[in-house]
Amino acid sequence: MRAALSLAARGLGNTWPNPAVGCVVVRDGQVVGRGWTAPGGRPHAETEALRRAGEAARGATAYVTLEPCCHWGRTPPCTDALIAAGVARVVVALRDPDPRVDGRGLRLLQEAGIEVQHGVLEAEAAALTAGFIRRVSAGLPLVTLKLATTLDGRIATRTGESRWITGPAARRAVHAMRARHDAVLVGSGTLLADDPDLTCRLPGAAPTPTVRVVADARLRTPASARLFHNPAPAWIVTRSGHPEAALAALRARGAELVEVPAAENGTGLDVGALLRALAVRGITRVFAEGGAALAAGLLRAGLVDRLAWFHAPATMGADGRPAVDVLPLDMLSAMPRFRRVSAAVLGPDLLSEFEAA
Amino acid sequence: MRAALSLAARGLGNTWPNPAVGCVVVRDGQVVGRGWTAPGGRPHAETEALRRAGEAARGATAYVTLEPCCHWGRTPPCTDALIAAGVARVVVALRDPDPRVDGRGLRLLQEAGIEVQHGVLEAEAAALTAGFIRRVSAGLPLVTLKLATTLDGRIATRTGESRWITGPAARRAVHAMRARHDAVLVGSGTLLADDPDLTCRLPGAAPTPTVRVVADARLRTPASARLFHNPAPAWIVTRSGHPEAALAALRARGAELVEVPAAENGTGLDVGALLRALAVRGITRVFAEGGAALAAGLLRAGLVDRLAWFHAPATMGADGRPAVDVLPLDMLSAMPRFRRVSAAVLGPDLLSEFEAA
Repeated sequence: MRAALSLAARGLGNTWPNPAVGCVVVRDGQVVGRGWTAPGGRPHAETEALRRAGEAARGATAYVTLEPCCHWGRTPPCTDALIAAGVARVVVALRDPDPRVDGRGLRLLQEAGIEVQHGVLEAEAAALTAGFIRRVSAGLPLVTLKLATTLDGRIATRTGESRWITGPAARRAVHAMRARHDAVLVGSGTLLADDPDLTCRLPGAAPTPTVRVVADARLRTPASARLFHNPAPAWIVTRSGHPEAALAALRARGAELVEVPAAENGTGLDVGALLRALAVRGITRVFAEGGAALAAGLLRAGLVDRLAWFHAPATMGADGRPAVDVLPLDMLSAMPRFRRVSAAVLGPDLLSEFEAA
Repeated sequence: MRAALSLAARGLGNTWPNPAVGCVVVRDGQVVGRGWTAPGGRPHAETEALRRAGEAARGATAYVTLEPCCHWGRTPPCTDALIAAGVARVVVALRDPDPRVDGRGLRLLQEAGIEVQHGVLEAEAAALTAGFIRRVSAGLPLVTLKLATTLDGRIATRTGESRWITGPAARRAVHAMRARHDAVLVGSGTLLADDPDLTCRLPGAAPTPTVRVVADARLRTPASARLFHNPAPAWIVTRSGHPEAALAALRARGAELVEVPAAENGTGLDVGALLRALAVRGITRVFAEGGAALAAGLLRAGLVDRLAWFHAPATMGADGRPAVDVLPLDMLSAMPRFRRVSAAVLGPDLLSEFEAA
């Protein structure tokens, strides 16, 4: 099952709207087939592993990280494929909470005479599949908030200089993180300040089609933005009521326009509505890269599931630009707190990863 | 020599104005005497180790972390003691840069027919003795700046609530750090906000006589401060010109008043002059615990030798009180940067230690 989980992880960021699943087929102590969800979500992991196993699948054990699907989607049900291949036993890490599956996949296999076991490395599978689970159970994507700051929490000087606070190793780690998410999300302030292309540039790796999403209530994204200089999808989420010509100008550059309600207070968007709109479109894992307004909006709404904080070994002082805007916050007891998952030194910088407490 | 360094470390914070030295006397492969500088700086490590060795010191090897003194101070010269004890060989980690010694100790031993070696674990000894070296060579103490903040660099809510951002393990680590420094330094803002007693409270350890120093240009420290509720020394550093009655009221509470020039700009003190005044009084290691004005003053002046930063796993937002006041800073290239020495998880918090880059 560890091997299957490791295969599943290869799909992270590439398989939406489907979950990233891994499958290993074992016959007489030998691995006879391996598969993981392909980019775009098909073929599914089981189909691929069974195809590679061929006749060797007969009487074998299939280890699958997520309960096999039993419904017709864009592919035929994996339960049918497992039954047709003649596997003797299926070991599943995690039940699929998708209402179309939700235990029915396991039952169908059992009814076909296959020995079924589930709950093996369930916690590990749940962590890996957290984005998909969150989408099908809560209608929201998993949100990782990333910030890269000085020790005193600043992201730029008062004059706006921000390149670079962290070093090359930290920036490479950010590109790897982007690749494992379905979408990268920034606020329009960051877009205007940095004009980032938000792509994943990893030496030796194929470009990933990570969706770039801009939260842009006031529709400030210029048609000239570097975002539009490459073919990965670019979505602009804004509120309703902007002139059709402005929307059309961005559509002409390849942008997809998504309208969501404005926040009750202030000029921004309702971040919950923004995330729900992404989930509806199939996004399971969002990598939010700031700026300070977006970070505060997500924290205020309690919508940060994971936090990745890079600290550079430097101090900027109180006129530097803060990483997180006013929440606001009077009492320490109301402060958003997180649970540490890891701490890693990356060159001069330190990456701390957290989960919502 | 490692054993001698470990003994020397026991004296950190207790031996000023003298250095914390360790000495191990070895005869025929057996340790026959061990010593370290006693609280208050005497007896010296060598005297104590030779006393314990007694007759066994004759023909033995003495391992000493710092070149033995050769002058009469508050104790007779250690070179005399080593010669009188009849040791055959002296191994020294670090030459003493004190102009009264500076190689003369080694020479006197050689002239007495003792085999002398030096430079063994010199870097380790230099790190351990850094405060003393800095005092005798630059007329300044070694300064460790400690800050305990949220991930976004805040030390209190906008309403001033600050207890507690970090957890018990981090706070215990702070008390242990205080004990290894000669003096703890805070600004008057921190004193007024928190009314701390700044003592070292470590279960199972004797109270250390760490000097509590308040940088207080405007002489705002009240005679009722908790600082004065215990017998450890309390020094108030201020500028000249305050009414004699105000000074006398603090002296009556046991405070020692120290006058230094004001900063060229603003209302604060010249932090360089403040530190020089401490060094003149024998302080070799200062633990600066903030607040934001003192931290900015030390960083601005380039007077932070070591940085100890505790990060709690929480975010406060931009209306929280910053850890470091305005430096000010326009360009990233002018930002104070540090070299990471360690990263350690302490309960929910993380302690990063740095040296000046």
